[in-house]
Amino acid sequence: MHKVIFDTDPGVDDALALLYLARHPDIDLLGVTAVFGNAPLEMTFRNARVLTRAFGVTAPVHAGAAEALVPVPEDFPWHIHGNNGLGNLPVDDVADIPNSTAVRFLIDTIRAHPGEVRVLAVGRMTNLALALTEAPEIAGLVKDVVLMGGAFGTHGNISPAAEANIFGDPLAADIVFGADWTVTAIPLNVTRRTVMTREALAELCRTGDEAMRMVGALSQDYISFYEGNGEAGMLVHDCTAGVFLTDPDLFDLQTGSVRVCDHGPFRGQTLQKPDGVGFAPSGWDGRPTQRVALDGNGAAILDRIARACGRA
Amino acid sequence: MHKVIFDTDPGVDDALALLYLARHPDIDLLGVTAVFGNAPLEMTFRNARVLTRAFGVTAPVHAGAAEALVPVPEDFPWHIHGNNGLGNLPVDDVADIPNSTAVRFLIDTIRAHPGEVRVLAVGRMTNLALALTEAPEIAGLVKDVVLMGGAFGTHGNISPAAEANIFGDPLAADIVFGADWTVTAIPLNVTRRTVMTREALAELCRTGDEAMRMVGALSQDYISFYEGNGEAGMLVHDCTAGVFLTDPDLFDLQTGSVRVCDHGPFRGQTLQKPDGVGFAPSGWDGRPTQRVALDGNGAAILDRIARACGRA
Repeated sequence: MHKVIFDTDPGVDDALALLYLARHPDIDLLGVTAVFGNAPLEMTFRNARVLTRAFGVTAPVHAGAAEALVPVPEDFPWHIHGNNGLGNLPVDDVADIPNSTAVRFLIDTIRAHPGEVRVLAVGRMTNLALALTEAPEIAGLVKDVVLMGGAFGTHGNISPAAEANIFGDPLAADIVFGADWTVTAIPLNVTRRTVMTREALAELCRTGDEAMRMVGALSQDYISFYEGNGEAGMLVHDCTAGVFLTDPDLFDLQTGSVRVCDHGPFRGQTLQKPDGVGFAPSGWDGRPTQRVALDGNGAAILDRIARACGRA
Repeated sequence: MHKVIFDTDPGVDDALALLYLARHPDIDLLGVTAVFGNAPLEMTFRNARVLTRAFGVTAPVHAGAAEALVPVPEDFPWHIHGNNGLGNLPVDDVADIPNSTAVRFLIDTIRAHPGEVRVLAVGRMTNLALALTEAPEIAGLVKDVVLMGGAFGTHGNISPAAEANIFGDPLAADIVFGADWTVTAIPLNVTRRTVMTREALAELCRTGDEAMRMVGALSQDYISFYEGNGEAGMLVHDCTAGVFLTDPDLFDLQTGSVRVCDHGPFRGQTLQKPDGVGFAPSGWDGRPTQRVALDGNGAAILDRIARACGRA
């Protein structure tokens, strides 16, 4: 069983990822930590609670960071994730945010299960960077970190240079890539290959349970957004990163240290120094080698999602 | 006939490019402008004069910029281009540098042949940026600019992020890409495919003239450098860009505006916003679309070089 903490900003594709974690027989979901990103923190936290309750997840939900390490005015993607961060599916009003407990939960849970916890981070990396700053030793205690983020050698989605999760807190991402733990990035390079068509989504809803139908309902505007951009369906970014936890063989990894550009037009740009290629001294030196999925088997990844979420 | 100004920093692969321009029947070489880069300006200017004389080129040679627009301490690549910038081939001592006339020559020559001049720039883009600054109207008078530089979606050679020509004066390159003229970049993406083996070089020397044998002699340490880096031969960067002048069909171009990162670890990184892909507002907006060769037919490019330089 994989012991997983899910750091998330629901977010439509986050909902499918949460269902994958909740339904997959090999995953033990220890907790959910919310972070700002696809919507403000008060919404992503609320949405995480709504989704866990609806999916029968008993693991705790903790609120985390509401802004980047270096705060900037946020331009939330209402046109992608809906006006409530959950595809405009009617949900309860925004609740008050309790004290921020996500960083404490991350640290305590990693310490409680040395060598066992896998962190799946699919929003801004702010919670992880704060946890590392407060308790650097967790880098040596965690099993690994899997993150959805980045665009390596290909254009981003929020800007030509950047993918949205990394753009939203580039300093936090640079800290996470630079820490001495095992990071695997699942970037746009792969998630552009995991396109779920409207038909495939409908089939999942038909064969799945009530929770899957809820995901289907809240994904309708999101899938329309992608169709409007010329895609055959919706990119299931976050759930693709979830599949890496259980099926790493479906991904092609390149190893090397990673840097993130933290400002200017290239803000959020991710760049890996490939292991085995020589360079003059650079800002990539002295940092741990990490793993970046440059490609993946899109069809097989979608099949794994269907097996877990649709019970097909 | 293509009227060409060659902006260059000889430089070993510059020498082959100059021979290509001098020998190709469809090229009318109007002049050579030297710039710092592969060696200090006093050497690149001296080398340009040595090479033009040896190749029977009667076009004038002008000295240009000796440092970047924002000067930084230079770390010249003696281990690649030799201690004299010309592969350690014995040449006369470094001469005094006359007044810098390259920018004046560029402006006057472009004005004298409106719509006809093609600038082939294979060093730092400093001379071009200075010419644009002094006489912005040349952008509308030149036929086009072809440059060797950049690494688009692939690692650089001077750093993981950057190719050396762009790294050496990133601000100048950003100015050149941002001007309203037609720029075609021939980056590492292509020049990594134009690898001339030691055997192919020897064959060129056998079938070519005395000038080609001089290029062969001064290329020996350069080819050893590349072989030591695991290549099958030497990358003929600059001459590959020269072939674009005469044989554009051998290159696969992507269009879109280009930015250059000008400082920090990503200094010299080149990134194109592909035309036809939508993004939120970014630093790529409002700039002209340019052309980047993302791929090319390496074997055919090498064949064109052999035809012009080896008279095979």
